[in-house]
Amino acid sequence: MFPKNTWYVACTPDEIADKPLGRQICGERIVFYRGPEGKVAAVEDFCPHRGAPLSLGRVTDGQLVCGYHGLVMGCDGKVVSMPGQRVRGFPCTRSFPVVERYGFIWVWTGDEKLADPAQIHHLEWAVSPDWAYGGGLYHIKCEYRLMIDNLMDLTHETYVHATSIGQKEIDESPVTTQTEGDTVVTSRFMENVMAPPFWREALRANHLADDVAVDRWQICRFTPPSHVLIEVGVAHAGHGGYDADPRYKASSIVVDFITPETETSHWYFWGMARNFKPEDEALTATIREGQGNIFAEDMEMLERQQENLLAYPERRLLMLNIDSGGINARRVLERMVAQERNIPA
Amino acid sequence: MFPKNTWYVACTPDEIADKPLGRQICGERIVFYRGPEGKVAAVEDFCPHRGAPLSLGRVTDGQLVCGYHGLVMGCDGKVVSMPGQRVRGFPCTRSFPVVERYGFIWVWTGDEKLADPAQIHHLEWAVSPDWAYGGGLYHIKCEYRLMIDNLMDLTHETYVHATSIGQKEIDESPVTTQTEGDTVVTSRFMENVMAPPFWREALRANHLADDVAVDRWQICRFTPPSHVLIEVGVAHAGHGGYDADPRYKASSIVVDFITPETETSHWYFWGMARNFKPEDEALTATIREGQGNIFAEDMEMLERQQENLLAYPERRLLMLNIDSGGINARRVLERMVAQERNIPA
Amino acid sequence: MFPKNTWYVACTPDEIADKPLGRQICGERIVFYRGPEGKVAAVEDFCPHRGAPLSLGRVTDGQLVCGYHGLVMGCDGKVVSMPGQRVRGFPCTRSFPVVERYGFIWVWTGDEKLADPAQIHHLEWAVSPDWAYGGGLYHIKCEYRLMIDNLMDLTHETYVHATSIGQKEIDESPVTTQTEGDTVVTSRFMENVMAPPFWREALRANHLADDVAVDRWQICRFTPPSHVLIEVGVAHAGHGGYDADPRYKASSIVVDFITPETETSHWYFWGMARNFKPEDEALTATIREGQGNIFAEDMEMLERQQENLLAYPERRLLMLNIDSGGINARRVLERMVAQERNIPA
Repeated sequence: MFPKNTWYVACTPDEIADKPLGRQICGERIVFYRGPEGKVAAVEDFCPHRGAPLSLGRVTDGQLVCGYHGLVMGCDGKVVSMPGQRVRGFPCTRSFPVVERYGFIWVWTGDEKLADPAQIHHLEWAVSPDWAYGGGLYHIKCEYRLMIDNLMDLTHETYVHATSIGQKEIDESPVTTQTEGDTVVTSRFMENVMAPPFWREALRANHLADDVAVDRWQICRFTPPSHVLIEVGVAHAGHGGYDADPRYKASSIVVDFITPETETSHWYFWGMARNFKPEDEALTATIREGQGNIFAEDMEMLERQQENLLAYPERRLLMLNIDSGGINARRVLERMVAQERNIPA
Repeated sequence: MFPKNTWYVACTPDEIADKPLGRQICGERIVFYRGPEGKVAAVEDFCPHRGAPLSLGRVTDGQLVCGYHGLVMGCDGKVVSMPGQRVRGFPCTRSFPVVERYGFIWVWTGDEKLADPAQIHHLEWAVSPDWAYGGGLYHIKCEYRLMIDNLMDLTHETYVHATSIGQKEIDESPVTTQTEGDTVVTSRFMENVMAPPFWREALRANHLADDVAVDRWQICRFTPPSHVLIEVGVAHAGHGGYDADPRYKASSIVVDFITPETETSHWYFWGMARNFKPEDEALTATIREGQGNIFAEDMEMLERQQENLLAYPERRLLMLNIDSGGINARRVLERMVAQERNIPA
Repeated sequence: MFPKNTWYVACTPDEIADKPLGRQICGERIVFYRGPEGKVAAVEDFCPHRGAPLSLGRVTDGQLVCGYHGLVMGCDGKVVSMPGQRVRGFPCTRSFPVVERYGFIWVWTGDEKLADPAQIHHLEWAVSPDWAYGGGLYHIKCEYRLMIDNLMDLTHETYVHATSIGQKEIDESPVTTQTEGDTVVTSRFMENVMAPPFWREALRANHLADDVAVDRWQICRFTPPSHVLIEVGVAHAGHGGYDADPRYKASSIVVDFITPETETSHWYFWGMARNFKPEDEALTATIREGQGNIFAEDMEMLERQQENLLAYPERRLLMLNIDSGGINARRVLERMVAQERNIPA
């Protein structure tokens, strides 16, 4: 259950730097590569000749060459040539709209005619020199909506991430969830608390005292199909919290692009964008490693949750106030899917 | 195919010493832990909030706390509390009767109203200071009845365990099988034979000559649902065999608790109880290691047998006299299952 | 989809030298071993007693003894004996016609009455002292016909084996395919080309210059059910190519016996027979290692091709001139299968 007429993050440029990349997205087997003039291209990962995966081939002069018998595939899915063959009558392979933007390759697996790159949201942190970004990719064997739930309800930090970003006050602070159109925002503000280890480190990186009370905030913003950007930060208490002057705070954006692979697995592109010390690459690496460790803690929980849900498909789960971010996001997704299928929502 | 209104061994105390244990038994996913006052508890391994396995959580003050969002589960399956939530209306989770006795945790996965701890058979070797016990646990990918068959027909020792406890005379000695109510007993007595390696070692441990003829016995006792206790031993020949005075013999009880996991897999709790040198912990460890090696020899055979039976489901197997222990045990089990389902047996 | 009234290579003598070998062929689970007087034997790998795989047993005095309870199986599928049992009434197990010839064990999994060892083609290279042979076995998770396709269209060498036997001229040279009865032959001749690395080495092993132009040939011969023998070689250009005098050429026979395991997996017996330096065992080992590496390059491609075909079962593949060897071989196989089933072809 996922909308297809939308842009998903498919991969990052480094993944197609040396050779084509085969990746299943929304149930489609796709090969991504750099075509003519280095422009990204994506076609079905299935050679029309004998069904070999084109991703086992190579790119020569911007052309994708099948690694089995040398069929040359164009980025539009039309066969360009094949040794010793006339290819004019060859069937066309499906190609997928792709866009390289903000440091990611985006793919559209639905109706090609509707693919408009302008629908990709602007990501200021990805283009501004004031920001630095570091991130990674995890393959997780659970449906992508369980990850959205996870990120739209950060009370789990207290339990899953107890030693890094969790703290008891998360539980104790109420959340506010607001839906505007297709955007769902869940916010939590904690006042006058002690920062947990991850944030104490961030305070020090900003040359701020880490042993004084802070105000802490988490603003989770879901936009379709499955992007969750979370504004997180702490400010020395009494300076305005989220609105405090930059010299009193450490803040960043947790970046989550969640791409369905199958109905029960997904690709999780995670990262962090920060607007302090953007030139400090060592700091980027340190944050990236710490975040990678924290997000790995979610994997076992999510995969085992998925197993449980598959074992007991008839069970109705609770829908508490803390779940309303995920629930509202699911409603947006259901509406999108119904619209794609022309089913009255 | 397994009775559910009965007590199975679920785990041993060491398995729940540090954290909750998730284990599937008779198809039910269950979490075992120590609840209030250290009393064992078992509830379904499924958090009613979002379906996370409770076994990934922790126990705090005798309460099971979900490791995802902090729901606190009571040992009766009623939700105790959850941060920021009123839990009175929360649905109840299934709890399972559990009893800690004889060094094992026993669970009842059937109708709770029928669960009577008095039905657990008395195990003298588990409570008497004259006895020592050592054992282990194997997970085996075959249905539990194949293991019962295995243990109720020890002719396999000659072939599977040729280098330790097997000897040709096992084959050559007739077996006697008797059924009394739900108990099935298969006995074999060998007179005036040389002891195989395992028993020569046991004779030496009893300060008995190991190079003289012995009488050897194997008395396999099946009691429902799937316990096979085997009296085994050797005595210097001519002193009365099974009834010989203790100073002429080495004997022990092979303990087998066989707990279905699914229709095609089970948990095998194996061990040995002995009434000589009970205080000698090094000897317990030695015997345990030897027995562990011997029982591991059965695993490949049983799992491959299961594969064969699944590949050829229509095949009728032979039922020889040596198989009558297993066959009679299966009849008891069929009667129990029919009774549970109110089907005339 | 595979014919059963035919001889397949089941294993090599070394595989049954020390103990019985369990192997699934054409969907049948079979145990191969050396019976009375060392003659090869094959019966179903399923003990009629309790369904244990007989291949876990041992051979004693030419009798197959079940490793579980000691049933002694005859090579005709009749139970010979069992400790403490009268076996006259025991059911008969299926036995399979087997023949040891040319360094292989051949099995017939179809109608036993039709099994005629004379149908095994004569293999001169396997019996003549002028030839040496070295080979190996791969288990490949794709249906056996994909391997036949692979071997009947060597244009793939240019892509899959670019660093060893591939060269651009293969692509550029036309192929000729001829079918005579059940035999399909695909030939390709390249004139005046430079030899690729594998053949340069072979020229040197024949004390021939490796830096001059050669004529190269590939003659792929399919015979049912799934044998592909390929005459390959190079000769110094201008000396008659395939028909050149031996002192100007290096040539050999690529041997491929392809045995279905299931509908989507097979056993691939590969090797090379050569008629130069047959006594040079070090050379045999070197060629064997090189060939093993080359053929391993096909495995990922074939297994991933199989995955693709299973994911898109409705897709029609192209059938180009280069594919006609494989296509014609498939027609022969379809005719054989139809005949077995008495379906008009």
